[in-house]
Amino acid sequence: MNTLISRLAAGETIFTAWSSIPDALTVEAMAGQGYDAVTLDMQHGGHHEDSVLRSIPGILRAGAHPVVRIPVGRFDMASRALDFGAESVIAPMINSVADARAFGAAMKYPPLGDRSWGPTFALPRSAVRDPQEWLLNSNARTLAFAMVETRAALDALDGILEAPGIDGIFVGPADFSIAWTGGGSIDPVREDMMEAVADIARRTLSAGKVAGIYLTNVTMAGRFAKMGYRFQAVASELRVIAAGSAALLGDARGSLA
Amino acid sequence: MNTLISRLAAGETIFTAWSSIPDALTVEAMAGQGYDAVTLDMQHGGHHEDSVLRSIPGILRAGAHPVVRIPVGRFDMASRALDFGAESVIAPMINSVADARAFGAAMKYPPLGDRSWGPTFALPRSAVRDPQEWLLNSNARTLAFAMVETRAALDALDGILEAPGIDGIFVGPADFSIAWTGGGSIDPVREDMMEAVADIARRTLSAGKVAGIYLTNVTMAGRFAKMGYRFQAVASELRVIAAGSAALLGDARGSLA
Amino acid sequence: MNTLISRLAAGETIFTAWSSIPDALTVEAMAGQGYDAVTLDMQHGGHHEDSVLRSIPGILRAGAHPVVRIPVGRFDMASRALDFGAESVIAPMINSVADARAFGAAMKYPPLGDRSWGPTFALPRSAVRDPQEWLLNSNARTLAFAMVETRAALDALDGILEAPGIDGIFVGPADFSIAWTGGGSIDPVREDMMEAVADIARRTLSAGKVAGIYLTNVTMAGRFAKMGYRFQAVASELRVIAAGSAALLGDARGSLA
Amino acid sequence: MNTLISRLAAGETIFTAWSSIPDALTVEAMAGQGYDAVTLDMQHGGHHEDSVLRSIPGILRAGAHPVVRIPVGRFDMASRALDFGAESVIAPMINSVADARAFGAAMKYPPLGDRSWGPTFALPRSAVRDPQEWLLNSNARTLAFAMVETRAALDALDGILEAPGIDGIFVGPADFSIAWTGGGSIDPVREDMMEAVADIARRTLSAGKVAGIYLTNVTMAGRFAKMGYRFQAVASELRVIAAGSAALLGDARGSLA
Amino acid sequence: MNTLISRLAAGETIFTAWSSIPDALTVEAMAGQGYDAVTLDMQHGGHHEDSVLRSIPGILRAGAHPVVRIPVGRFDMASRALDFGAESVIAPMINSVADARAFGAAMKYPPLGDRSWGPTFALPRSAVRDPQEWLLNSNARTLAFAMVETRAALDALDGILEAPGIDGIFVGPADFSIAWTGGGSIDPVREDMMEAVADIARRTLSAGKVAGIYLTNVTMAGRFAKMGYRFQAVASELRVIAAGSAALLGDARGSLA
Amino acid sequence: MNTLISRLAAGETIFTAWSSIPDALTVEAMAGQGYDAVTLDMQHGGHHEDSVLRSIPGILRAGAHPVVRIPVGRFDMASRALDFGAESVIAPMINSVADARAFGAAMKYPPLGDRSWGPTFALPRSAVRDPQEWLLNSNARTLAFAMVETRAALDALDGILEAPGIDGIFVGPADFSIAWTGGGSIDPVREDMMEAVADIARRTLSAGKVAGIYLTNVTMAGRFAKMGYRFQAVASELRVIAAGSAALLGDARGSLA
Ligand SMILES: [Mg+2]
Ligand SMILES: [Mg+2]
Ligand SMILES: [Mg+2]
Ligand SMILES: [Mg+2]
Ligand SMILES: [Mg+2]
Ligand SMILES: [Mg+2]
Repeated sequence: MNTLISRLAAGETIFTAWSSIPDALTVEAMAGQGYDAVTLDMQHGGHHEDSVLRSIPGILRAGAHPVVRIPVGRFDMASRALDFGAESVIAPMINSVADARAFGAAMKYPPLGDRSWGPTFALPRSAVRDPQEWLLNSNARTLAFAMVETRAALDALDGILEAPGIDGIFVGPADFSIAWTGGGSIDPVREDMMEAVADIARRTLSAGKVAGIYLTNVTMAGRFAKMGYRFQAVASELRVIAAGSAALLGDARGSLA
Repeated sequence: MNTLISRLAAGETIFTAWSSIPDALTVEAMAGQGYDAVTLDMQHGGHHEDSVLRSIPGILRAGAHPVVRIPVGRFDMASRALDFGAESVIAPMINSVADARAFGAAMKYPPLGDRSWGPTFALPRSAVRDPQEWLLNSNARTLAFAMVETRAALDALDGILEAPGIDGIFVGPADFSIAWTGGGSIDPVREDMMEAVADIARRTLSAGKVAGIYLTNVTMAGRFAKMGYRFQAVASELRVIAAGSAALLGDARGSLA
Repeated sequence: MNTLISRLAAGETIFTAWSSIPDALTVEAMAGQGYDAVTLDMQHGGHHEDSVLRSIPGILRAGAHPVVRIPVGRFDMASRALDFGAESVIAPMINSVADARAFGAAMKYPPLGDRSWGPTFALPRSAVRDPQEWLLNSNARTLAFAMVETRAALDALDGILEAPGIDGIFVGPADFSIAWTGGGSIDPVREDMMEAVADIARRTLSAGKVAGIYLTNVTMAGRFAKMGYRFQAVASELRVIAAGSAALLGDARGSLA
Repeated sequence: MNTLISRLAAGETIFTAWSSIPDALTVEAMAGQGYDAVTLDMQHGGHHEDSVLRSIPGILRAGAHPVVRIPVGRFDMASRALDFGAESVIAPMINSVADARAFGAAMKYPPLGDRSWGPTFALPRSAVRDPQEWLLNSNARTLAFAMVETRAALDALDGILEAPGIDGIFVGPADFSIAWTGGGSIDPVREDMMEAVADIARRTLSAGKVAGIYLTNVTMAGRFAKMGYRFQAVASELRVIAAGSAALLGDARGSLA
Repeated sequence: MNTLISRLAAGETIFTAWSSIPDALTVEAMAGQGYDAVTLDMQHGGHHEDSVLRSIPGILRAGAHPVVRIPVGRFDMASRALDFGAESVIAPMINSVADARAFGAAMKYPPLGDRSWGPTFALPRSAVRDPQEWLLNSNARTLAFAMVETRAALDALDGILEAPGIDGIFVGPADFSIAWTGGGSIDPVREDMMEAVADIARRTLSAGKVAGIYLTNVTMAGRFAKMGYRFQAVASELRVIAAGSAALLGDARGSLA
Repeated sequence: MNTLISRLAAGETIFTAWSSIPDALTVEAMAGQGYDAVTLDMQHGGHHEDSVLRSIPGILRAGAHPVVRIPVGRFDMASRALDFGAESVIAPMINSVADARAFGAAMKYPPLGDRSWGPTFALPRSAVRDPQEWLLNSNARTLAFAMVETRAALDALDGILEAPGIDGIFVGPADFSIAWTGGGSIDPVREDMMEAVADIARRTLSAGKVAGIYLTNVTMAGRFAKMGYRFQAVASELRVIAAGSAALLGDARGSLA
């Protein structure tokens, strides 16, 4: 399988499921639905060390890319996610160059960063068998997504893009809308911020990095893809369960009439 | 809240979700989607003692009826499900009057059955505070569904309906289709067995009992309701996750074009 | 440490905690309070295979005897509880000699019974290191308690006491009161059944077996001890939590006045 | 139900249970005992991300306020606790204004703080259905307790009280006694520090904030209430289990004599 | 991958690991060591419904055959193991033709047996996508091993081999040695019973079935293979951990001298 | 039992198992193999708050010293590990005096550090019964190991050794080899770094502290012991499982020939 970063760099659009329920069987069920990747959310979702460790094999078995979003500032967990077998890590609230540097350092082995050695689970879960090969190739194989979702982050974007170890930008439009309105509104699809969103992608691609975004309205996938967002989060379990339940219950109730 | 059995007896159609994933958070997510009941499946699903015990509060909190399907012949678990707070138990493969009697006995306190005393979790999870009231009212409050899904069961139906403690019949059309075809076909919506299915409902209602059925095609809800099936299983997590994912991924992919 | 059966045979009164919450840390907390034994309840409590296996080390570390009550008729679990390190098993609803024989057989190695070999966890958790010693001494070291709690059991008592492998009788006064009143009353301390309760102890002791009972009113410990009940269940977690909470909250509220 | 902060502001005395055992069923048992709130302790107790997420529904179902104490400095978890459905968070060792600002920021949405959007579990667990309403009302609905338990904190108290997002002070008398004696003594009810404890409440109330405290001797509830401490932690599971066990075992043993 | 039964029928010798620790990560570690199969033991090991369900993906990912040994008489679990994705089930203490018939029936769909429809996890975990194909091919794809480990079983062997649905015999030499000596000795490699062990294999192969055995001395693999035992259990986690620890500790200690 | 630090100070060589699998039963199995200590790894291993809390009793019951390695910079967890009953904590990547001071402070009660009071699980799991005794003796009873595994750490070694609360140095040769080669090589037994490794031990012992190291080749135990490394990590579960499996499978396969 090609790596996530190589597929994105090649221009593929990648759809990721977004898992909030910290249960390996639920993740396995999601992973079997044809998504390109599954992201385990430790920031606003319920995932934690144990559920991430136990959920990754089900994602790999489905042929999807395992991605982890860590809690704010928990860069210890960025390294751990990689040691558990994640291919990419998304770090929320990267609001400064210092944040980006700390995140990048946790994601990459020396000399690029200071990730500590110990792929206890990741190595046996991979096709690699030689530790030396692992050391030399991991930095290129993993993908560090810095989230840009505040005005401070927007201001620091160029520096963030230059921080060692940062491979891409992931936009969080919900927080971005709150920032955009000074706390007045939660509205991830506000038209008045779309030019800024487009600009983030442009600058990210110009810097040779990849761009991702969280979608609350999946029909915007095309528009975001045109902006350059190749990694798109389209479906959390809770949305999936709501959508599927509404359809099935609706059909059942409808047939009663 | 009215009891499940009183609502069914009054002619309401009740839609139950069907949970196979033994995880309380996933059950909580399902329970919040507007189903009238949530059934935790211990026969073909992954539910077990621990997951049933931990999932029931989330169902109750959503205002839905907690139901448990036990494994084949595990009548010890029928009593336990009630002690954990289930309102109804579905027993698969009740193929003889002896099966029905054993199941009914596990579901009801003396003198009707021989359920043992000990509502350790069920009583504090209920609105009842007085043990004596619990003893005297539980037999009427709980609902024992015997599954009819083989030719032997069909032959024994009248005796099953008379067995002490049996409150209703739940039809399993998948197994019934296999039985109907001598092992040749799995097809839960075979037209050639629908008259038999209708007959089961008729005889069940004539005996003053309630009837339920598992749907693989939810648009048949109306047809089954007309037959008298008031308790209808319409949505397993895996179907819900498949349906929701297909819709979201389809819309996302569609917008790319 | 002396075995539970040897202590009971020597006339000690043994108080057991009664655990319903399937969690090893909660069991560890209970085990540290000075009880002689801790009983893990799989019938009306929430314990299951996993929680029993994980809770026994905490009981042993506290120097208490680990006991398991199995679900009705689950004699496969009687053997498993011993393989996990339980010293005694209580089987509910032993209502016939056949029940007693099946239970006894599951508890004892040949030639007394037909317990299957495999003390996977029990042997390393014990002080025994030699499998041959384990085989030859286990039947005497373990304690099989048959529950007598129905009229049928009372009628069959002498035969139950003679069944191979049965070491003692454990009375369940709650179910017994329901049986005594034909399903009319749940009242474990009914005076009108106390003579029958005393008679069970007398016959049990005459047969050279040990007697146990569940107490809902702990101040009856002395009276039951005089009858010969040496193994007494005095405290479930839920009662302990209710009693402790009432005391602490009461004192706090009282001091506000 | 009124919010915890509105009840405290109105002068009610609120008693919270204190849970150290990371198990939802044990928390459910505690929550059913009449406490006004249940606090899940992640600092010295065993609670963790998974147990907090799974325990909150049982607290809500009992009609109690769910509160979480986070580990030292883990402000990422303050936001997560709110996303899981906690109503209040207690942060230990807030020893400087900078600590208080960081904690307050994690607890409140912009513009007051920088809490990130994503009430994945909290919103469906609440009565709120509209995200915009959630955004606008959450800052007032949640309660941030900063722990004051060192001399440094005492010195910084006025600045802590002014930090954006801080709603109240929670005193930890055990650590305070160690601080008070330069590491020489653990004695949470030292008389010589009571005037300082009273002073903390006075200054907190003067600043328009609410005050809470941990009690090791519940009969001091009245005295602390008079000082202005309205939120009082009175009962950890381990104390409850010890108190309840001592009472039941004592009565049982006493009746043997 | 060829099926387990087809590989055995073709004369391959298959070595299975034997897992007693109910933890998916431990099973994953074992599965990665080059065993042909991994057997999850629910009789004397600690595996249970949840651990079996969660451990199978790790076995499949390693390219090994997942096998489950059920508890004595728990034929409900034989069907469930298959629904979770097990390829083979081993049933202990099949001591009569009736036992064998009940086990065989639980393992095979009609008309051969009466296994109930519902491969909730097994089907998506397999390469099969069509339910009809699953129905028609499963009986041949699954492998039912009846354990012969008592004198009664030996006497009933021919009838057991003829029971519908029984595909093979698995010998338990530990219990067999106890039976052989009337409860006097646990010695799975007794020379005086080896002729009987060889005879079981001969009769099993003559009946067109496959033969398996549990080894406590792995150097007997060749001898048993010559007898016809093609499925050999060689390594439980506890033995593996003991052997590996002794080697590493021994080398470390040795180098100190 | 003597404390770990007193045994090391007295010149004993202590071998620790290294656990990566977050499961109490697996830890119990490892702890029973004769290791002097068991280290639960939260940095590169899968251990987390829950598994650490639940695994410690099994280590204590085996008479081994419980040790925890925390994730990078998670000093909140250092205190928690002690509150759960760990005797020693290993902190990775202590690359500066500031790191060492923060770690030491989290490990020791005032006045030496600022560890917060609350040995909720540790105190009942110990032989100590008096909180005052606990407070006064804990600093001497616990052992804080700072990991030295980068060039920055080597440069800061003297200051690290002087940091309050630091009791010993633990060398990580894998990361050290990466640092030594500027990211070019992972080789924990490089001869060209052994003089530096020996120097770390010399300086550590000169400062009156204890020294530990992780071994990838256990036959180097003697050489490292001569350097002064008294605490040696010799066996992770994964290595143990690999070694034991290779031996058993090898012997089985060998006997087939
Ligand atoms: Mg965000
Ligand atoms: Mg069926
Ligand atoms: Mg009873
Ligand atoms: Mg404190
Ligand atoms: Mg056997
Ligand atoms: Mg390292």
